[in-house]
Amino acid sequence: MTFLEYRKNLIKDILKFNPQRKEYKKGEILTDISFSTEKILIIDKGLIRYYHNLCEEKEFLLGCYSKGNIIILDRISDFLDGDKYLENFYIEVCEDTTCYIVDKNFLKILYMKDIDLHEKILEYTSIFYQKLFFQIRDIKLFSIENAVLSLLIRAYRTYGNNNENSFINHKILNKNIAKSLNSTEETVSRVVAKLKKEGFISIKKKHFFLQNLEEIEKRLGCKSCRKSICYF
Amino acid sequence: MTFLEYRKNLIKDILKFNPQRKEYKKGEILTDISFSTEKILIIDKGLIRYYHNLCEEKEFLLGCYSKGNIIILDRISDFLDGDKYLENFYIEVCEDTTCYIVDKNFLKILYMKDIDLHEKILEYTSIFYQKLFFQIRDIKLFSIENAVLSLLIRAYRTYGNNNENSFINHKILNKNIAKSLNSTEETVSRVVAKLKKEGFISIKKKHFFLQNLEEIEKRLGCKSCRKSICYF
Repeated sequence: MTFLEYRKNLIKDILKFNPQRKEYKKGEILTDISFSTEKILIIDKGLIRYYHNLCEEKEFLLGCYSKGNIIILDRISDFLDGDKYLENFYIEVCEDTTCYIVDKNFLKILYMKDIDLHEKILEYTSIFYQKLFFQIRDIKLFSIENAVLSLLIRAYRTYGNNNENSFINHKILNKNIAKSLNSTEETVSRVVAKLKKEGFISIKKKHFFLQNLEEIEKRLGCKSCRKSICYF
Repeated sequence: MTFLEYRKNLIKDILKFNPQRKEYKKGEILTDISFSTEKILIIDKGLIRYYHNLCEEKEFLLGCYSKGNIIILDRISDFLDGDKYLENFYIEVCEDTTCYIVDKNFLKILYMKDIDLHEKILEYTSIFYQKLFFQIRDIKLFSIENAVLSLLIRAYRTYGNNNENSFINHKILNKNIAKSLNSTEETVSRVVAKLKKEGFISIKKKHFFLQNLEEIEKRLGCKSCRKSICYF
Protein backbone atom coordinates (compact mmCIF):
# COMPACT_ATOMS: atom_id res chain seq x y z
CA MET A 1 0.00 0.00 0.00
CA THR A 2 1.27 3.49 -0.77
CA PHE A 3 0.85 6.37 1.67
CA LEU A 4 -1.74 7.94 -0.65
CA GLU A 5 -3.82 4.75 -0.72
CA TYR A 6 -3.43 4.42 3.03
CA ARG A 7 -4.66 7.98 3.58
CA LYS A 8 -7.56 7.44 1.17
CA ASN A 9 -8.63 4.34 3.12
CA LEU A 10 -8.55 6.19 6.43
CA ILE A 11 -10.70 8.97 4.97
CA LYS A 12 -13.17 6.39 3.65
CA ASP A 13 -13.33 4.77 7.10
CA ILE A 14 -14.26 8.10 8.66
CA LEU A 15 -16.61 9.41 5.96
CA LYS A 16 -18.86 6.38 6.13
CA PHE A 17 -20.11 7.79 9.44
CA ASN A 18 -21.27 10.99 7.70
CA PRO A 19 -19.49 13.71 9.67
CA GLN A 20 -20.79 17.25 9.20
CA ARG A 21 -19.68 19.35 6.25
CA LYS A 22 -18.69 22.96 6.77
CA GLU A 23 -17.74 25.81 4.49
CA TYR A 24 -14.91 28.22 5.17
CA LYS A 25 -14.19 31.48 3.40
CA LYS A 26 -10.87 32.44 1.84
CA GLY A 27 -8.67 34.15 4.40
CA GLU A 28 -10.14 32.48 7.49
CA ILE A 29 -7.58 31.21 9.93
CA LEU A 30 -8.61 28.17 11.89
CA THR A 31 -6.85 28.45 15.22
CA ASP A 32 -7.38 26.80 18.56
CA ILE A 33 -9.89 29.49 19.58
CA SER A 34 -12.43 28.87 16.85
CA PHE A 35 -11.42 25.24 16.54
CA SER A 36 -11.36 24.12 20.15
CA THR A 37 -13.59 21.07 19.72
CA GLU A 38 -12.74 20.15 16.12
CA LYS A 39 -10.49 17.11 16.02
CA ILE A 40 -10.31 15.90 12.44
CA LEU A 41 -10.61 17.85 9.24
CA ILE A 42 -10.98 16.23 5.84
CA ILE A 43 -10.80 18.54 2.85
CA ASP A 44 -13.51 17.98 0.26
CA LYS A 45 -13.07 21.07 -1.91
CA GLY A 46 -10.76 24.08 -1.93
CA LEU A 47 -7.29 24.70 -0.62
CA ILE A 48 -5.72 25.31 2.77
CA ARG A 49 -2.25 26.10 4.00
CA TYR A 50 -1.01 24.11 6.99
CA TYR A 51 1.76 25.90 8.81
CA HIS A 52 3.72 25.97 11.96
CA ASN A 53 4.13 29.13 13.95
CA LEU A 54 7.10 30.10 16.01
CA CYS A 55 7.85 32.94 18.29
CA GLU A 56 8.61 36.23 16.54
CA GLU A 57 5.84 35.58 14.03
CA LYS A 58 8.11 33.32 12.03
CA GLU A 59 6.03 31.07 9.85
CA PHE A 60 7.08 27.69 8.58
CA LEU A 61 4.92 26.23 5.80
CA LEU A 62 4.32 22.49 6.11
CA GLY A 63 2.07 21.99 3.14
CA CYS A 64 -0.76 23.26 0.93
CA TYR A 65 -3.57 20.74 1.02
CA SER A 66 -6.58 20.23 -1.21
CA LYS A 67 -9.20 17.48 -1.71
CA GLY A 68 -8.35 14.12 -0.21
CA ASN A 69 -6.27 15.36 2.67
CA ILE A 70 -6.86 14.71 6.32
CA ILE A 71 -5.53 16.72 9.23
CA ILE A 72 -5.66 15.45 12.79
CA LEU A 73 -6.04 18.41 15.10
CA ASP A 74 -6.20 16.26 18.20
CA ARG A 75 -2.71 16.41 19.61
CA ILE A 76 -2.37 13.00 21.09
CA SER A 77 0.00 14.04 23.84
CA ASP A 78 -2.67 16.27 25.39
CA PHE A 79 -2.52 14.14 28.53
CA LEU A 80 1.07 15.26 29.19
CA ASP A 81 1.74 18.16 31.53
CA GLY A 82 3.14 21.39 30.28
CA ASP A 83 0.88 22.83 27.62
CA LYS A 84 -2.44 24.52 28.16
CA TYR A 85 -4.64 24.86 25.10
CA LEU A 86 -1.59 25.53 23.04
CA GLU A 87 -1.51 25.31 19.30
CA ASN A 88 1.62 25.44 17.19
CA PHE A 89 0.00 24.33 13.95
CA TYR A 90 -2.26 26.66 12.01
CA ILE A 91 -4.56 26.36 9.06
CA GLU A 92 -5.32 29.20 6.67
CA VAL A 93 -8.05 28.91 4.08
CA CYS A 94 -6.50 29.90 0.70
CA GLU A 95 -9.58 29.36 -1.45
CA ASP A 96 -13.20 28.95 -0.32
CA THR A 97 -13.04 25.48 1.16
CA THR A 98 -15.46 22.75 2.19
CA CYS A 99 -14.37 20.30 4.85
CA TYR A 100 -15.78 17.37 6.71
CA ILE A 101 -15.36 18.03 10.40
CA VAL A 102 -15.17 15.50 13.20
CA ASP A 103 -15.50 17.21 16.55
CA LYS A 104 -14.74 15.87 20.00
CA ASN A 105 -18.18 14.40 20.60
CA PHE A 106 -18.53 12.89 17.16
CA LEU A 107 -15.08 11.32 17.54
CA LYS A 108 -16.22 9.58 20.72
CA ILE A 109 -19.18 8.16 18.81
CA LEU A 110 -16.85 7.01 16.01
CA TYR A 111 -14.62 5.22 18.48
CA MET A 112 -17.62 3.42 19.92
CA LYS A 113 -18.94 2.41 16.50
CA ASP A 114 -15.58 1.34 15.07
CA ILE A 115 -13.24 -0.03 17.68
CA ASP A 116 -10.25 -0.04 15.31
CA LEU A 117 -10.54 3.61 14.38
CA HIS A 118 -8.73 4.94 17.44
CA GLU A 119 -5.67 2.88 16.56
CA LYS A 120 -5.90 3.85 12.90
CA ILE A 121 -5.97 7.55 13.74
CA LEU A 122 -3.12 7.16 16.19
CA GLU A 123 -1.13 5.30 13.55
CA TYR A 124 -1.81 8.00 10.97
CA THR A 125 -0.68 10.65 13.46
CA SER A 126 2.55 8.76 14.01
CA ILE A 127 3.20 8.37 10.29
CA PHE A 128 2.32 12.03 9.76
CA TYR A 129 4.97 13.17 12.24
CA GLN A 130 7.57 10.75 10.86
CA LYS A 131 6.86 12.25 7.45
CA LEU A 132 7.26 15.73 8.87
CA PHE A 133 10.53 14.76 10.54
CA PHE A 134 12.02 13.68 7.21
CA GLN A 135 10.68 16.78 5.48
CA ILE A 136 12.24 19.19 7.94
CA ARG A 137 15.42 17.09 8.13
CA ASP A 138 16.01 17.55 4.40
CA ILE A 139 15.61 21.28 4.74
CA LYS A 140 18.08 21.39 7.59
CA LEU A 141 20.76 19.03 6.34
CA PHE A 142 20.72 19.66 2.62
CA SER A 143 22.13 22.59 0.69
CA ILE A 144 19.43 25.00 -0.50
CA GLU A 145 19.56 23.52 -4.03
CA ASN A 146 19.03 20.02 -2.68
CA ALA A 147 16.36 21.27 -0.26
CA VAL A 148 14.38 22.69 -3.20
CA LEU A 149 14.79 19.43 -5.13
CA SER A 150 13.70 17.50 -2.04
CA LEU A 151 10.47 19.54 -1.85
CA LEU A 152 9.86 19.01 -5.57
CA ILE A 153 10.42 15.24 -5.31
CA ARG A 154 7.83 15.16 -2.49
CA ALA A 155 5.44 17.21 -4.62
CA TYR A 156 6.04 14.92 -7.58
CA ARG A 157 5.34 11.83 -5.50
CA THR A 158 2.18 13.43 -4.10
CA TYR A 159 0.80 15.10 -7.23
CA GLY A 160 2.79 13.39 -9.96
CA ASN A 161 1.01 12.51 -13.14
CA ASN A 162 1.66 8.91 -14.06
CA ASN A 163 1.00 9.52 -17.74
CA GLU A 164 3.61 12.20 -18.04
CA ASN A 165 6.28 10.91 -15.77
CA SER A 166 7.97 14.04 -14.54
CA PHE A 167 5.04 16.43 -14.39
CA ILE A 168 3.92 17.83 -11.03
CA ASN A 169 0.18 18.38 -11.33
CA HIS A 170 0.05 21.14 -8.74
CA LYS A 171 0.94 24.82 -8.94
CA ILE A 172 4.00 25.56 -6.86
CA LEU A 173 4.87 29.17 -6.13
CA ASN A 174 8.40 30.30 -5.29
CA LYS A 175 6.82 32.23 -2.41
CA ASN A 176 5.59 28.97 -0.88
CA ILE A 177 8.89 27.17 -1.48
CA ALA A 178 10.57 30.04 0.39
CA LYS A 179 8.14 29.72 3.31
CA SER A 180 8.75 25.97 3.43
CA LEU A 181 12.49 26.47 3.60
CA ASN A 182 12.56 29.47 5.93
CA SER A 183 14.25 31.30 3.06
CA THR A 184 13.41 34.30 0.86
CA GLU A 185 11.63 34.43 -2.48
CA GLU A 186 14.73 36.00 -4.07
CA THR A 187 16.97 33.14 -2.98
CA VAL A 188 14.47 30.56 -4.18
CA SER A 189 14.14 32.31 -7.59
CA ARG A 190 17.90 32.22 -7.95
CA VAL A 191 18.09 28.53 -6.98
CA VAL A 192 15.20 27.58 -9.28
CA ALA A 193 16.90 29.41 -12.18
CA LYS A 194 20.15 27.54 -11.47
CA LEU A 195 18.39 24.15 -11.34
CA LYS A 196 16.64 24.99 -14.62
CA LYS A 197 19.92 25.95 -16.27
CA GLU A 198 21.53 22.73 -15.04
CA GLY A 199 18.72 20.74 -16.63
CA PHE A 200 17.19 19.26 -13.47
CA ILE A 201 13.84 20.98 -13.78
CA SER A 202 11.69 22.93 -16.20
CA ILE A 203 8.62 25.08 -15.62
CA LYS A 204 5.54 25.58 -17.78
CA LYS A 205 2.69 27.82 -16.56
CA LYS A 206 3.81 27.60 -12.92
CA HIS A 207 3.93 23.80 -13.13
CA PHE A 208 7.22 22.11 -12.46
CA PHE A 209 8.62 19.22 -14.45
CA LEU A 210 11.42 17.06 -13.08
CA GLN A 211 13.69 16.55 -16.08
CA ASN A 212 15.86 13.77 -14.78
CA LEU A 213 14.25 11.99 -11.88
CA GLU A 214 16.95 9.32 -11.62
CA GLU A 215 19.71 11.93 -11.43
CA ILE A 216 17.82 13.95 -8.79
CA GLU A 217 17.23 10.85 -6.66
CA LYS A 218 20.90 9.98 -6.90
CA ARG A 219 21.91 13.51 -5.94
CA LEU A 220 19.63 13.49 -2.87
CA GLY A 221 20.43 9.93 -1.82
CA CYS A 222 16.79 8.81 -2.09
CA LYS A 223 17.77 5.16 -2.31
CA SER A 224 18.86 5.19 1.33
CA CYS A 225 15.85 7.19 2.52
CA ARG A 226 12.25 6.38 3.29
CA LYS A 227 10.27 6.67 0.08
CA SER A 228 7.22 5.24 1.82
CA ILE A 229 6.55 8.55 3.57
CA CYS A 230 8.04 10.94 1.01
CA TYR A 231 4.76 12.80 0.43
CA PHE A 232 3.10 16.04 1.41
CA MET B 1 1.75 13.41 33.92
CA THR B 2 5.13 14.54 32.64
CA PHE B 3 6.79 12.91 29.65
CA LEU B 4 9.38 11.33 31.96
CA GLU B 5 6.69 9.76 34.15
CA TYR B 6 4.83 8.63 31.05
CA ARG B 7 7.96 6.97 29.66
CA LYS B 8 8.69 5.33 33.01
CA ASN B 9 5.17 3.87 33.11
CA LEU B 10 5.50 2.45 29.62
CA ILE B 11 8.81 0.81 30.56
CA LYS B 12 7.21 -0.66 33.68
CA ASP B 13 4.35 -2.06 31.57
CA ILE B 14 6.83 -3.84 29.33
CA LEU B 15 9.32 -5.00 31.97
CA LYS B 16 6.69 -6.84 33.98
CA PHE B 17 6.71 -9.45 31.21
CA ASN B 18 10.43 -10.10 31.80
CA PRO B 19 11.96 -9.54 28.37
CA GLN B 20 15.48 -10.88 27.85
CA ARG B 21 18.48 -8.87 28.97
CA LYS B 22 21.49 -8.52 26.66
CA GLU B 23 24.93 -7.00 26.99
CA TYR B 24 26.59 -4.93 24.32
CA LYS B 25 30.22 -3.87 24.16
CA LYS B 26 31.43 -0.31 23.69
CA GLY B 27 31.76 0.49 20.01
CA GLU B 28 29.12 -1.94 18.75
CA ILE B 29 26.75 -0.48 16.21
CA LEU B 30 23.29 -1.93 16.27
CA THR B 31 22.01 -1.71 12.72
CA ASP B 32 19.23 -3.42 10.88
CA ILE B 33 21.50 -6.34 9.97
CA SER B 34 22.22 -7.50 13.50
CA PHE B 35 18.97 -6.08 14.80
CA SER B 36 16.48 -7.37 12.28
CA THR B 37 14.05 -8.93 14.74
CA GLU B 38 14.58 -6.64 17.74
CA LYS B 39 11.68 -4.25 18.11
CA ILE B 40 12.02 -2.53 21.47
CA LEU B 41 15.14 -1.69 23.42
CA ILE B 42 15.08 -0.50 27.02
CA ILE B 43 18.38 0.65 28.46
CA ASP B 44 19.16 -0.71 31.91
CA LYS B 45 22.82 0.27 32.24
CA GLY B 46 25.38 2.10 30.14
CA LEU B 47 25.10 4.68 27.39
CA ILE B 48 24.13 4.67 23.73
CA ARG B 49 24.06 7.25 20.99
CA TYR B 50 20.94 7.37 18.86
CA TYR B 51 21.60 8.98 15.52
CA HIS B 52 20.21 9.48 12.10
CA ASN B 53 22.22 8.76 9.02
CA LEU B 54 22.01 10.50 5.73
CA CYS B 55 23.62 9.97 2.41
CA GLU B 56 27.23 11.11 2.22
CA GLU B 57 27.93 9.66 5.67
CA LYS B 58 26.46 12.75 7.29
CA GLU B 59 25.48 11.96 10.84
CA PHE B 60 22.85 13.74 12.84
CA LEU B 61 22.83 13.04 16.58
CA LEU B 62 19.35 12.73 18.08
CA GLY B 63 20.31 11.92 21.63
CA CYS B 64 22.61 10.12 24.05
CA TYR B 65 20.51 7.76 26.14
CA SER B 66 21.20 5.98 29.40
CA LYS B 67 19.13 4.03 31.97
CA GLY B 68 15.40 4.54 31.76
CA ASN B 69 15.18 5.15 28.05
CA ILE B 70 13.15 3.21 25.57
CA ILE B 71 13.68 3.05 21.84
CA ILE B 72 11.07 1.62 19.50
CA LEU B 73 12.85 0.05 16.55
CA ASP B 74 9.65 -1.15 14.95
CA ARG B 75 8.90 1.45 12.35
CA ILE B 76 5.17 1.47 12.36
CA SER B 77 4.86 2.44 8.73
CA ASP B 78 6.46 -0.83 7.65
CA PHE B 79 3.25 -1.77 5.87
CA LEU B 80 3.66 1.11 3.44
CA ASP B 81 5.29 0.51 0.07
CA GLY B 82 8.62 1.98 -0.83
CA ASP B 83 11.24 0.86 1.69
CA LYS B 84 12.88 -2.52 1.89
CA TYR B 85 14.60 -3.36 5.15
CA LEU B 86 15.78 0.19 5.35
CA GLU B 87 17.07 1.81 8.48
CA ASN B 88 17.77 5.50 8.88
CA PHE B 89 18.22 5.44 12.63
CA TYR B 90 21.32 3.96 14.20
CA ILE B 91 22.45 3.07 17.68
CA GLU B 92 26.07 3.08 18.79
CA VAL B 93 27.10 1.68 22.16
CA CYS B 94 29.23 4.36 23.89
CA GLU B 95 29.88 2.47 27.14
CA ASP B 96 29.35 -1.23 27.83
CA THR B 97 25.59 -1.36 27.95
CA THR B 98 22.89 -3.71 29.20
CA CYS B 99 19.48 -3.58 27.57
CA TYR B 100 16.18 -5.32 27.79
CA ILE B 101 15.23 -6.49 24.33
CA VAL B 102 11.78 -7.21 23.01
CA ASP B 103 11.99 -9.03 19.69
CA LYS B 104 9.31 -9.60 17.09
CA ASN B 105 8.04 -12.84 18.59
CA PHE B 106 8.09 -11.62 22.18
CA LEU B 107 6.21 -8.49 21.10
CA LYS B 108 3.43 -10.65 19.67
CA ILE B 109 3.17 -12.43 23.01
CA LEU B 110 3.07 -9.07 24.81
CA TYR B 111 0.23 -7.86 22.62
CA MET B 112 -1.73 -11.03 23.38
CA LYS B 113 -1.15 -10.74 27.12
CA ASP B 114 -1.83 -6.99 27.36
CA ILE B 115 -4.33 -5.78 24.82
CA ASP B 116 -3.65 -2.10 25.57
CA LEU B 117 0.08 -2.34 24.96
CA HIS B 118 -0.12 -2.03 21.18
CA GLU B 119 -1.90 1.29 21.50
CA LYS B 120 0.49 2.47 24.19
CA ILE B 121 3.52 1.70 22.03
CA LEU B 122 1.93 3.36 19.02
CA GLU B 123 1.15 6.40 21.13
CA TYR B 124 4.71 6.57 22.42
CA THR B 125 6.02 6.34 18.85
CA SER B 126 3.82 9.24 17.86
CA ILE B 127 4.91 11.37 20.80
CA PHE B 128 8.53 10.44 20.11
CA TYR B 129 8.34 11.73 16.54
CA GLN B 130 6.48 14.88 17.60
CA LYS B 131 9.28 15.47 20.08
CA LEU B 132 11.86 14.94 17.35
CA PHE B 133 10.01 17.33 15.04
CA PHE B 134 10.24 20.12 17.59
CA GLN B 135 13.89 19.30 18.31
CA ILE B 136 14.94 19.51 14.67
CA ARG B 137 12.68 22.52 14.07
CA ASP B 138 14.56 24.52 16.70
CA ILE B 139 17.85 23.67 15.06
CA LYS B 140 16.59 24.77 11.67
CA LEU B 141 14.73 27.92 12.57
CA PHE B 142 16.81 29.34 15.39
CA SER B 143 20.15 31.11 15.23
CA ILE B 144 23.05 28.90 16.34
CA GLU B 145 23.13 30.60 19.79
CA ASN B 146 19.43 29.89 20.30
CA ALA B 147 19.81 26.38 18.89
CA VAL B 148 22.47 25.63 21.55
CA LEU B 149 20.24 27.09 24.28
CA SER B 150 17.33 25.04 22.96
CA LEU B 151 19.39 21.83 23.28
CA LEU B 152 20.45 22.83 26.80
CA ILE B 153 16.87 23.58 27.88
CA ARG B 154 15.90 20.10 26.63
CA ALA B 155 18.81 18.60 28.56
CA TYR B 156 17.86 20.56 31.66
CA ARG B 157 14.27 19.36 31.47
CA THR B 158 15.44 15.77 30.97
CA TYR B 159 18.35 15.63 33.42
CA GLY B 160 17.71 18.71 35.56
CA ASN B 161 18.32 18.43 39.25
CA ASN B 162 15.35 19.75 41.18
CA ASN B 163 17.48 20.61 44.21
CA GLU B 164 19.82 22.83 42.29
CA ASN B 165 17.51 24.47 39.88
CA SER B 166 19.70 25.21 36.94
CA PHE B 167 22.07 22.24 37.04
CA ILE B 168 22.09 19.74 34.16
CA ASN B 169 23.04 16.41 35.70
CA HIS B 170 24.52 14.99 32.52
CA LYS B 171 27.88 15.53 30.84
CA ILE B 172 27.45 17.39 27.60
CA LEU B 173 30.37 17.56 25.18
CA ASN B 174 30.74 20.31 22.60
CA LYS B 175 31.48 17.53 20.11
CA ASN B 176 28.00 16.10 20.67
CA ILE B 177 26.33 19.51 20.55
CA ALA B 178 28.03 20.01 17.17
CA LYS B 179 26.77 16.66 15.89
CA SER B 180 23.26 17.50 17.07
CA LEU B 181 23.30 20.80 15.20
CA ASN B 182 25.07 19.62 12.05
CA SER B 183 27.77 22.15 12.98
CA THR B 184 31.46 22.00 13.90
CA GLU B 185 33.09 21.72 17.31
CA GLU B 186 34.90 25.03 16.72
CA THR B 187 31.66 26.89 16.06
CA VAL B 188 30.03 25.35 19.12
CA SER B 189 33.00 26.26 21.34
CA ARG B 190 32.77 29.86 20.15
CA VAL B 191 28.99 29.97 20.77
CA VAL B 192 29.31 28.37 24.21
CA ALA B 193 32.01 30.92 25.16
CA LYS B 194 29.73 33.75 24.01
CA LEU B 195 26.76 32.44 25.99
CA LYS B 196 28.99 32.09 29.05
CA LYS B 197 30.25 35.65 28.67
CA GLU B 198 26.69 36.91 28.30
CA GLY B 199 25.76 35.18 31.55
CA PHE B 200 23.26 32.66 30.18
CA ILE B 201 25.25 29.57 31.11
CA SER B 202 28.20 28.41 33.19
CA ILE B 203 30.18 25.18 33.09
CA LYS B 204 31.76 23.19 35.91
CA LYS B 205 33.54 19.91 35.14
CA LYS B 206 31.77 19.48 31.79
CA HIS B 207 28.40 20.04 33.46
CA PHE B 208 26.29 22.92 32.25
CA PHE B 209 24.35 25.28 34.51
CA LEU B 210 21.59 27.47 33.12
CA GLN B 211 22.14 30.79 34.85
CA ASN B 212 18.91 32.51 34.03
CA LEU B 213 16.26 30.04 33.02
CA GLU B 214 13.49 32.63 32.78
CA GLU B 215 15.54 34.82 30.46
CA ILE B 216 16.48 31.85 28.24
CA GLU B 217 12.85 30.73 28.00
CA LYS B 218 11.84 34.27 27.05
CA ARG B 219 14.58 34.45 24.43
CA LEU B 220 13.51 31.15 22.85
CA GLY B 221 9.78 31.78 23.09
CA CYS B 222 9.19 28.70 25.25
CA LYS B 223 5.86 30.01 26.51
CA SER B 224 4.32 29.51 23.08
CA CYS B 225 5.92 26.13 22.50
CA ARG B 226 5.16 22.60 23.66
CA LYS B 227 6.90 22.09 26.97
CA SER B 228 5.17 18.72 27.37
CA ILE B 229 7.51 17.11 24.88
CA CYS B 230 10.60 19.27 25.41
CA TYR B 231 12.82 16.36 26.46
CA PHE B 232 15.50 14.15 25.01
